[in-house]
Amino acid sequence: MADEKLSFGINDSQLEYANSVLQECIDNCTECSRMCLQLIPYCLDMGGEHASSEHIGTLQVCSIMCEACAKLMTLESEFHHDLCRLCAQICITCAIDCERLADDNPLMIDCAEICRKAAESCERMSAH
Amino acid sequence: MADEKLSFGINDSQLEYANSVLQECIDNCTECSRMCLQLIPYCLDMGGEHASSEHIGTLQVCSIMCEACAKLMTLESEFHHDLCRLCAQICITCAIDCERLADDNPLMIDCAEICRKAAESCERMSAH
Amino acid sequence: MADEKLSFGINDSQLEYANSVLQECIDNCTECSRMCLQLIPYCLDMGGEHASSEHIGTLQVCSIMCEACAKLMTLESEFHHDLCRLCAQICITCAIDCERLADDNPLMIDCAEICRKAAESCERMSAH
Amino acid sequence: MADEKLSFGINDSQLEYANSVLQECIDNCTECSRMCLQLIPYCLDMGGEHASSEHIGTLQVCSIMCEACAKLMTLESEFHHDLCRLCAQICITCAIDCERLADDNPLMIDCAEICRKAAESCERMSAH
Repeated sequence: MADEKLSFGINDSQLEYANSVLQECIDNCTECSRMCLQLIPYCLDMGGEHASSEHIGTLQVCSIMCEACAKLMTLESEFHHDLCRLCAQICITCAIDCERLADDNPLMIDCAEICRKAAESCERMSAH
Repeated sequence: MADEKLSFGINDSQLEYANSVLQECIDNCTECSRMCLQLIPYCLDMGGEHASSEHIGTLQVCSIMCEACAKLMTLESEFHHDLCRLCAQICITCAIDCERLADDNPLMIDCAEICRKAAESCERMSAH
Repeated sequence: MADEKLSFGINDSQLEYANSVLQECIDNCTECSRMCLQLIPYCLDMGGEHASSEHIGTLQVCSIMCEACAKLMTLESEFHHDLCRLCAQICITCAIDCERLADDNPLMIDCAEICRKAAESCERMSAH
Repeated sequence: MADEKLSFGINDSQLEYANSVLQECIDNCTECSRMCLQLIPYCLDMGGEHASSEHIGTLQVCSIMCEACAKLMTLESEFHHDLCRLCAQICITCAIDCERLADDNPLMIDCAEICRKAAESCERMSAH
């Protein structure tokens, strides 16, 4: 089924590559969604700017959007391109916010990196 | 379809009543899920214990569970009874936590009331 | 808090109006998300084209997107404009698909109308 | 933070083990949620009993519950034990349904195995 939907005008190895890019993006968005959710109680315990409504809100929105994006890709919706484009922007915003507050904290740095990886995947998928 | 699934051994007015109880519980869970989500940035801006990982976590969990519970009822899953029972406990926990921190704040009191309403609906549904 | 975020350069009655438009859009998206989810088992029981992966997929995607959109608005994320724009397109697509298959079926017509209402709200919010 | 929450009366290696069991269960529930969602369009394209409202509904409910369960574990909610117990039942139900319809189809067999793996993890977590 996946094959059929993606196969117009491309050969088998191109198709396999397209599918692997899709699966990787689903993985990256899923990981990003979980990481942002996991960071929320951690940031609340840190307090200060980490516990601000702005930072926590950014983590929540990134988690919600990555989850929705992973679902649309799993369902192979034609709308995943546009959602991936928007999701990439949100992931970048979240990465920048985590980097701003990271101060060598390994979990914050981890989260920023996972956000950037998801953003790159999403940008690539938005063009597919 | 809903009719068929719920109709064994009960008459039309009983069926209508059962459906209205179901719809009301879906409404109450949906409202509770949204209210808890909406309260998170508000509590973060209040700071102190309102912004603690315990209180915010309770709001998040209540929101997630009410959402899942509303979906299982919408799909008329046989498992909604057990999930409603658990959801009622979570809503009560969230209501108590909001009341503890309310201190006459109308939004906190609102949230506690909505949680209690969802809990009552869920308890009733768990027996259906 | 909501007041503060939305208040730059607008007066109280404009603010009240903006908030009511936001709340209405959250309501409409929430209703649309639930209606699409509820229609899935109904369409599966009808069989034929109603039970095709295309139609069911459209209902699933509309439900997922309306849910994500309602959450971003509830959290007052700056990204809700762009997500509302995309959500409007998805709701219209779903409305057209329901109308195509409706054939005087009241539930299908209901769903199409709820999708169109959500689409209109989302279009309005995308400009705010 | 995770350490603190789980550390009462247990030593470091026990704690490490508890955390690895938790992470594995989150992974298994996340994989199960995605697999069930992915199988829906595939089963719809197969038609017949695979496309029945009962089977599709079971896949939907399993996907929703595994998702909620993974989130509660990620947030380290005290309620994850009870939700894991219920989630295990739902995953088993879904596994049995997939096996019943599998007929050597590798994707159906895959899904059943992933459901059973998630069920085992959830059962273990429900006792922790």
